[in-house]
Amino acid sequence: MNDRELGCAGGQFMDRGRMNQNGVVQPLLTDLYQITMAYAYWKSDKTDDTAVFDLFFRNNPFHGEFTIFAGLEECLKFLDSFHYSQSDIEYLKQTLPEGIEHEFFEYLGNLTARDVTLYAIDEGTVAFPRVPIIKIEGPLIIVQLLETTLLTLVNYASLMATNAARYRMVAGKHVKLLEFGLRRAQGPDGGLSASKYSYTGGFDGTSNVLAGKLFNIPVKGTHAHAYITSFSSIGELKTRLIKHKQTGIMEDLLEHAIKHRGLLSHLLDVSTEESSEGELAAMVSYAIAFPDGFMALVDTSGLLNFSAVALALNDLGYHALGIRIDSGDLAYLSCLARETFEKVAERFKVPWFNKLTIVASNDINEDTILSLNEQGHKIDCFGIGTHLVTCQRQPALGCVYKLVEINGQPRIKLSQDVEKVTMPGNKNAYRLYSADGHALIDLLQKVSEPPPAVGQKVLCRHPFQESKRAYVIPSHVESLYKVYWKAGKICQQLPTLEQVREKVQISLKTLRNDHKRTLNPTPYKVAVSDNLYNFIHDLWLQNAPIGELS
Amino acid sequence: MNDRELGCAGGQFMDRGRMNQNGVVQPLLTDLYQITMAYAYWKSDKTDDTAVFDLFFRNNPFHGEFTIFAGLEECLKFLDSFHYSQSDIEYLKQTLPEGIEHEFFEYLGNLTARDVTLYAIDEGTVAFPRVPIIKIEGPLIIVQLLETTLLTLVNYASLMATNAARYRMVAGKHVKLLEFGLRRAQGPDGGLSASKYSYTGGFDGTSNVLAGKLFNIPVKGTHAHAYITSFSSIGELKTRLIKHKQTGIMEDLLEHAIKHRGLLSHLLDVSTEESSEGELAAMVSYAIAFPDGFMALVDTSGLLNFSAVALALNDLGYHALGIRIDSGDLAYLSCLARETFEKVAERFKVPWFNKLTIVASNDINEDTILSLNEQGHKIDCFGIGTHLVTCQRQPALGCVYKLVEINGQPRIKLSQDVEKVTMPGNKNAYRLYSADGHALIDLLQKVSEPPPAVGQKVLCRHPFQESKRAYVIPSHVESLYKVYWKAGKICQQLPTLEQVREKVQISLKTLRNDHKRTLNPTPYKVAVSDNLYNFIHDLWLQNAPIGELS
Repeated sequence: MNDRELGCAGGQFMDRGRMNQNGVVQPLLTDLYQITMAYAYWKSDKTDDTAVFDLFFRNNPFHGEFTIFAGLEECLKFLDSFHYSQSDIEYLKQTLPEGIEHEFFEYLGNLTARDVTLYAIDEGTVAFPRVPIIKIEGPLIIVQLLETTLLTLVNYASLMATNAARYRMVAGKHVKLLEFGLRRAQGPDGGLSASKYSYTGGFDGTSNVLAGKLFNIPVKGTHAHAYITSFSSIGELKTRLIKHKQTGIMEDLLEHAIKHRGLLSHLLDVSTEESSEGELAAMVSYAIAFPDGFMALVDTSGLLNFSAVALALNDLGYHALGIRIDSGDLAYLSCLARETFEKVAERFKVPWFNKLTIVASNDINEDTILSLNEQGHKIDCFGIGTHLVTCQRQPALGCVYKLVEINGQPRIKLSQDVEKVTMPGNKNAYRLYSADGHALIDLLQKVSEPPPAVGQKVLCRHPFQESKRAYVIPSHVESLYKVYWKAGKICQQLPTLEQVREKVQISLKTLRNDHKRTLNPTPYKVAVSDNLYNFIHDLWLQNAPIGELS
Repeated sequence: MNDRELGCAGGQFMDRGRMNQNGVVQPLLTDLYQITMAYAYWKSDKTDDTAVFDLFFRNNPFHGEFTIFAGLEECLKFLDSFHYSQSDIEYLKQTLPEGIEHEFFEYLGNLTARDVTLYAIDEGTVAFPRVPIIKIEGPLIIVQLLETTLLTLVNYASLMATNAARYRMVAGKHVKLLEFGLRRAQGPDGGLSASKYSYTGGFDGTSNVLAGKLFNIPVKGTHAHAYITSFSSIGELKTRLIKHKQTGIMEDLLEHAIKHRGLLSHLLDVSTEESSEGELAAMVSYAIAFPDGFMALVDTSGLLNFSAVALALNDLGYHALGIRIDSGDLAYLSCLARETFEKVAERFKVPWFNKLTIVASNDINEDTILSLNEQGHKIDCFGIGTHLVTCQRQPALGCVYKLVEINGQPRIKLSQDVEKVTMPGNKNAYRLYSADGHALIDLLQKVSEPPPAVGQKVLCRHPFQESKRAYVIPSHVESLYKVYWKAGKICQQLPTLEQVREKVQISLKTLRNDHKRTLNPTPYKVAVSDNLYNFIHDLWLQNAPIGELS
């Protein structure tokens, strides 16, 4: 059987789903080399070897100095369901080279994650380069087989949550943020993950209905421009009647709107001829459908029609919600809209008009919001799509998964590039806090060391620069890892999505502002204990070959 | 019920999958505003309105001048399965505002795409800005409801296929390209779509096992660095024996390797002390597992160990496959490796050593390949991950879905930005070819116009610039649209993924090289007929309000 034939063998599996029936990813969602390695380990009689792997990233995304860890729950569900189905085994038999012993496939077929122990930082916590966010121990073959899937589940989730948290920071607490990215997301599930993890990171809702259904996220939306263009004149309006909210009497909403339009035209100094009749018809019809949820897409001229319809609704006992602006100069238009609403509120004695929501949604990114903040704007809510879900500024978080210990022996990966040298051995991670509650430093130690103690001086060392050292006296010490999976079971009460979302904001609050600012943030320090420092450097010297210059 | 309560109502649906049992996306994978618009249309008595929407993009991605259209099959499967389940309807009842008539939910529950007609360009064809790749006709409400999902299915698929096709162009025909991006993809399904559509665009395989199984794509892979570091000495090698391929006698592979290592050390002028024993042990064990598929990850010093093990395999009747380089200067290292293999081939009289495969895989993008081509390299195969699957240079294709006709009446969307003005009406698209088989221009016409005829002069006009006109005498005229979905059925024999992949290369060949070059490619022309030009501009003038300067 040649490679080509091998590659083509999978057709019979085409109709099966990508996920199992619980929406959990399948163990075949991995790189082939994990399975070829599993075979080579098996063949080398390494089934009893045990290993420790660290899952970590080397750099924070988006030129920032923090990362939000997300995706843990999906990792745990993956461990819980980890099992190759008979159909998976059949596919692997056809895909791997001939001559592989059937005992290996039996071995694969019986594998579960029961002997694996997974330690992790809490989902929603701020995390930093080089501090493993997940540490996983267990049989070498199994923990190796988990690599790609865990990376896939953590990388995008954390990137997305971090991106969302950054948008939340620049937008401020009082502005609503909605995720509108489904159509530009990387595939259907990319869209769902984007909705879920932007909510985690601090967004208030999504336009994605399935995400709302599956993850219990508030869903929001108004109408598209097509709705406006589907009407070209008032004559097309088949229904104009709406029940007065209080009296229950049917009234002609269009008539009310036209009356107000005339008055508004003077007040706002906009000729009724400048605003389209089709638009008026569309807005009237939309208001009849959603009299208490009337939110309309408007351009500049649309303000006249919107205000007319909103006042008409007011006549009949309803309150409109607001407008969405999707083009043009958002700072100028939002100020114009607010000014218009204030004029109308005063002239028509409808104070709630002042409070109409202004949503903006045209190709917005972090820089747009910063620039709008600088210019001054009156936007209450941003709808953010493409740049949020594709993480335009950095479309991937580079999480890696590195072997640090095997059968109790440390392993170090050396590299010309010091940044790529791994921190060997089984480690614990602590976060040390100052008296005012701010996180000071993350400290990695060997598991054999006692944890740093409150009020005691701790020597914190840069992992690779000998002269960079500092004493820290923590007022509070947080042990970062919890055992999340052991003996075949999830062993923590998992937080709800809502709780993870709160955790993000709480965790961000522990960071000093200079670590969080957009421009040139201060790097947060990650250190190793003196003991671990010496351990790393001894091992490094033992393992580094002495080159010959020639 | 307030918004908050509405948003939280979905918890009971959590356990349901994201896709239906056939892996087809569900109709709730859409923006909420599609459903609120559906209700407003229904409430406005527009259930009998019919509409035509165009799905198109405005700019080619990656500073290029072409796009590969992909995702059509998934769109058709989506239409085929389009149906709101009872659980969807329940969720919508809880999510939409109170007071919506139960008749509307009944109407939604009975909706299918049976009355929709979908025209499209063939999947795998090169496509250009403004020429709709999909045109869809049918009941306004239904075609509006399809918008987001169709965009989601086409946007990333086409972006990915285009990206892959560009990598294929810069790499040349004779280099193999493998997609290695799963761990950095945007979620599990982002990874699967990336594998599928990079294969469409011209890649030769993927590391993603599930993609191999589901889509019948060749899967490839060797081992990770962890495999090497899992061995630290020869003593750890529990198995050294392998059957001689011809004689069937068990022999000690390590012994053979150590013998060759000594000889090679002189030939290659590398001291055996410079190369790690653990690495040798790892390679021997991997070679025992895959004697005919031995492909090893090496750094510079690894060449000695690799060559020793490959020669040992040769002694026993096996041929190694080659090496993967994942760090350092890829141009230099690949040349060094090839030179090494040539020396070994000559000295040890093993001519196939010349042909060992060199795979390179470290953070490669289009520019890296161009630069490697310039420097000169000996790489046979690139493994490409992050930059391929995240489409780093442009992480989203901006496909849009615009209403162009309603009840037989054209609709135009005006904008300050001429680029955003839509081309109204129901149109056909033709591609005109020169005598030498090259595509000359894409031409849009009103459906009422006769198609351009071979050998006849056709006036082609720039859609918005009055003075830009050209006569074209086509030697061949291709009608770009086929009816792919009508009367509730897929009405074309759908090509296999393999056939779509071939189509991409055939279609790209019809493009002149200057449209395809990396640096400053010539824009391919997209034109409208004189008739359509006048139609657009008359409609524009009718619809554009006359402003007042004040």
